[in-house]
Amino acid sequence: MEAFPYDAAELPQLAIPVAQTLEGFLDLRWIALDDEHAEVRFAVRDALRQPLGLLHGGVYSAVAETIASVATVRAVWPDGFTASGLRNSAQFLRPVTDGSVRVSARCRHRDDREWLWSHEFHDDRQRLCAIVDVTIAVRRPR
Amino acid sequence: MEAFPYDAAELPQLAIPVAQTLEGFLDLRWIALDDEHAEVRFAVRDALRQPLGLLHGGVYSAVAETIASVATVRAVWPDGFTASGLRNSAQFLRPVTDGSVRVSARCRHRDDREWLWSHEFHDDRQRLCAIVDVTIAVRRPR
Amino acid sequence: MEAFPYDAAELPQLAIPVAQTLEGFLDLRWIALDDEHAEVRFAVRDALRQPLGLLHGGVYSAVAETIASVATVRAVWPDGFTASGLRNSAQFLRPVTDGSVRVSARCRHRDDREWLWSHEFHDDRQRLCAIVDVTIAVRRPR
Amino acid sequence: MEAFPYDAAELPQLAIPVAQTLEGFLDLRWIALDDEHAEVRFAVRDALRQPLGLLHGGVYSAVAETIASVATVRAVWPDGFTASGLRNSAQFLRPVTDGSVRVSARCRHRDDREWLWSHEFHDDRQRLCAIVDVTIAVRRPR
Repeated sequence: MEAFPYDAAELPQLAIPVAQTLEGFLDLRWIALDDEHAEVRFAVRDALRQPLGLLHGGVYSAVAETIASVATVRAVWPDGFTASGLRNSAQFLRPVTDGSVRVSARCRHRDDREWLWSHEFHDDRQRLCAIVDVTIAVRRPR
Repeated sequence: MEAFPYDAAELPQLAIPVAQTLEGFLDLRWIALDDEHAEVRFAVRDALRQPLGLLHGGVYSAVAETIASVATVRAVWPDGFTASGLRNSAQFLRPVTDGSVRVSARCRHRDDREWLWSHEFHDDRQRLCAIVDVTIAVRRPR
Repeated sequence: MEAFPYDAAELPQLAIPVAQTLEGFLDLRWIALDDEHAEVRFAVRDALRQPLGLLHGGVYSAVAETIASVATVRAVWPDGFTASGLRNSAQFLRPVTDGSVRVSARCRHRDDREWLWSHEFHDDRQRLCAIVDVTIAVRRPR
Repeated sequence: MEAFPYDAAELPQLAIPVAQTLEGFLDLRWIALDDEHAEVRFAVRDALRQPLGLLHGGVYSAVAETIASVATVRAVWPDGFTASGLRNSAQFLRPVTDGSVRVSARCRHRDDREWLWSHEFHDDRQRLCAIVDVTIAVRRPR
C-alpha cells in the first residue's frame, strides 16, 4: 500500500513538518484514505493517557479532527479550496487503557460549505469505545 | 499563588506521573481552580499546531477535557467518587496561530450523576476563539 | 404492514393518549421499527413551519427525539427498564419548505446505560437536509 | 410591558401568521428580548408532553430554536441580513412534568457569520432542567 496521506503533489505547502506537529505526536498509522472513508490505527502510550491511566479523552477528539481535516483538505485542495474545523463533538462510551485503537471515519455529508465526518473508535477487542463527529468548513482562501 | 492543581493529600493516587501524560504535554499553567471555576493558560508551540500552522483543533478539546476532569475529580474524590468524561463538544470560532491562550472554565450544572463545564478560549487580543462544553460523569468506583 | 409502533401488549401503560401529545401533533407515519432501525415519514404543514415558511428547526429535533425514545422504550420495556432522553444534537444542512420528509434512524450504539440513535432527514428529492443524534438513557424505574 | 417580539416595522414580512406556525403552537410568553438576552415562559400542557407524561424533549429544542432565531433575525434584519439555524444541541438534566417553564437565553458569541445562543430551562422550583445551545447563521439573502 502506498504512503498515506501526504503526497507532496496534491497537498498544500505545509508550514510545519508533520513530525513536529500534534499530528506527528499522535503517531497515526494511516490504513486507508479517500473522499468517503478513512481508517487509522494508533497505539496507546503514556503520552496519550491521563494520569489515572486511561486514554485521554482529548486524544479521541484530536485524532478525529486530524482525520477529518486531512481527508477534506486532500479532496478540496486541488480545486483551490482550503478547509478548517468548525465543530468537534465526542461521546465516550468505554474507556481504553491499553493496546491499539482503530478509527474508522466516514463522510456523512458534503455540500459546497461543509463536510461532515463521523469517526468510530474500536479497541483491540473490537468494542466501540467512542464516537466523534467533526464538521469541516470548506472555503476559498482569502 | 500555590501550585495547581495537584495536592497529593486530596487527589487519587495517580497511575502515571502527570509530566509523562498528555496533560503534561499540553503544559498548562493553572491560574485558578475551585469547584465553580478554573482558569488556565498555555503557550502555542509547533507541537500543538497542525501542519498548516494553526493551533490544532484537538488541543482545545484536550485542554477542556483536562480542566473539567481535574476540577471535578478534585471536588468529588474526597467523598469517595471518581469521574470520567462522557461528552466533549467544541466549536471553533477563530483560528489561533501564535502567542498564548487563556481558558476560562465555568461549571454550568452539577447533580449526583454529571457535572457540566463550559470553557471559553481567548487569544492574546482577548478575542473569543473557541467554546468547549464537557460533561463529566461522577460515579462510585467499582 | 401492521400498525406501528404501539402494541398495547409490549409498551408501558401510557399516561396520555398519543393523539393528545406532541407525538400526535407531529403526525408521524411509521414505516418501519425494530431494535436497530426505524423509518418515519411526515408531511410539512404550516403548524410545523416557522413564520418565514421553512420547516421549523425544532421539528427535526422533536421527530428524532420521538423516534429514538419510542424505539428504545419498545425494546427495553419488556425487560423492566424505562428510557428517557439525555441529549439531542441536530445539524441543519438544507432547509425544507414543502412536501414530505423521510427520516431514517439507525442505532449506532447500545450498552447497559445508553442507546445512541442517528437520524437522517431527506426531502422529496432525496436530499439530506438534517442529521440528528439522540442519546437515550436506559434505567430501571424507581 | 410591550408586546414581544414582533414589531411589524422591524421584522421581515412573514410568510405565515405566527399563530398558525409551530411558534404559535408553543405559545411562548416573551418576557424580555434584546440583542444579548431573551427570556420566555411557557406552560406545560398535554400537547407539549410525550405519552408517558413528561415534557417532550423536542419542546426544549424547539423553544430554544425559536428564541435564538427570533432574537437574531430581529437584530440583523434591519441591516439587510437573514438568519437560519445551523445547529441545535440539547442536554436534558431533569424531567419536567407540570407547571410552567422559564427560559433564559444569552448570546455567547457573535461574528459576521454566526450567532451562538445558550438557553437554560428552569422549572417552577427554579431547578435547571435543560441546557440548549443553538448556532444561527447570518447571511445576506440571495
